[in-house]
Amino acid sequence: MQILRVVRDLVATKRNVWLQSKSLRVVEDYQGNLEVALDPVGCKPGDFVIAIGISAARIAAGNPMTTTDLTIGGIIDHWSEEDWRS
Amino acid sequence: MQILRVVRDLVATKRNVWLQSKSLRVVEDYQGNLEVALDPVGCKPGDFVIAIGISAARIAAGNPMTTTDLTIGGIIDHWSEEDWRS
Amino acid sequence: MQILRVVRDLVATKRNVWLQSKSLRVVEDYQGNLEVALDPVGCKPGDFVIAIGISAARIAAGNPMTTTDLTIGGIIDHWSEEDWRS
Amino acid sequence: MQILRVVRDLVATKRNVWLQSKSLRVVEDYQGNLEVALDPVGCKPGDFVIAIGISAARIAAGNPMTTTDLTIGGIIDHWSEEDWRS
Amino acid sequence: MQILRVVRDLVATKRNVWLQSKSLRVVEDYQGNLEVALDPVGCKPGDFVIAIGISAARIAAGNPMTTTDLTIGGIIDHWSEEDWRS
Repeated sequence: MQILRVVRDLVATKRNVWLQSKSLRVVEDYQGNLEVALDPVGCKPGDFVIAIGISAARIAAGNPMTTTDLTIGGIIDHWSEEDWRS
Repeated sequence: MQILRVVRDLVATKRNVWLQSKSLRVVEDYQGNLEVALDPVGCKPGDFVIAIGISAARIAAGNPMTTTDLTIGGIIDHWSEEDWRS
Repeated sequence: MQILRVVRDLVATKRNVWLQSKSLRVVEDYQGNLEVALDPVGCKPGDFVIAIGISAARIAAGNPMTTTDLTIGGIIDHWSEEDWRS
Repeated sequence: MQILRVVRDLVATKRNVWLQSKSLRVVEDYQGNLEVALDPVGCKPGDFVIAIGISAARIAAGNPMTTTDLTIGGIIDHWSEEDWRS
Repeated sequence: MQILRVVRDLVATKRNVWLQSKSLRVVEDYQGNLEVALDPVGCKPGDFVIAIGISAARIAAGNPMTTTDLTIGGIIDHWSEEDWRS
């Protein structure tokens, strides 16, 4: 799983039915590369999260038919900029 | 999911039966790297889109037997060159 | 999907039964990195092709038990060196 | 499979139900890039481990519904900093 | 599929049950990056091999419950250092 930071919400009005009404977040890795993750946990910008990829992302969405390849699985309790690289 | 921009259509007359008659788009990431994505949404060049990978790409195609590893899942409402990197 | 160029055939006499008697091609990306793809389409060296990865590669092989993670899905009609990067 | 080193435990109190009560470890590759892996084996910081990704990560967790994309599969018997690159 | 070279055996006494008693090899790509692959073919150090990833790796292991994300699928007949990059 990746350790990512929530940047902000993503709005995509025109989307496929399997993503309909789900919360999408723009997330970044420690190098500032952006991706989009499904958020069934309820995160806010600035949260450091565990993001789950591959087929496990669909299961983590609560319904394996959800068309996601990256889903937020939890909010990390203690993490800061300095922890992002060993 | 990745945030990509639609570049143009891709024409491949000789292709396997599971991709037959589907719309394919050349898409690029913020560094200009090209990939090919299936488009069940209906995009035009210049659109910024959410692209879904892994096994979720097949579900997003509307039929899990579709042989795609990258499918456009939605068009992003507000996105520009400047938003592409945090 | 990736846009790759066929380099040549690959010969591997000693291989597992699920790949037996299938055509394998050495393919390269625009940076010259080599991979091996299964070819159910019938390509020749120099062809630019769409290559399908992930679990969709097995379906594109015509039998999901085929042990491939990269399968050629079609030959691109109009593509040249210059088109490889936007 | 990747060869990774265990750095420390990861605490995420708020997480999805499929990860509940599982041990999570922060792991690093030879370049110091961090990831999070599920640990059903019982590792301690400093251990060099084999980490299993893709859908096999879920099976390695003992229950394929576990939402992991990286699971520790074993502790390597003889490995040191010098072995990490050939 | 990747073209990799077998470096040596990997010993991991403490491992999960789905990998039990399988042969594991340390393999490298043309840049010297190391990975671990399951070897149902029977390779020796120095062999150039085709390595199968993603879910196909589990099928290539002979049993889809085998927890591998990289499995050796065959030994390449004619390959040398010079062939590794086009």
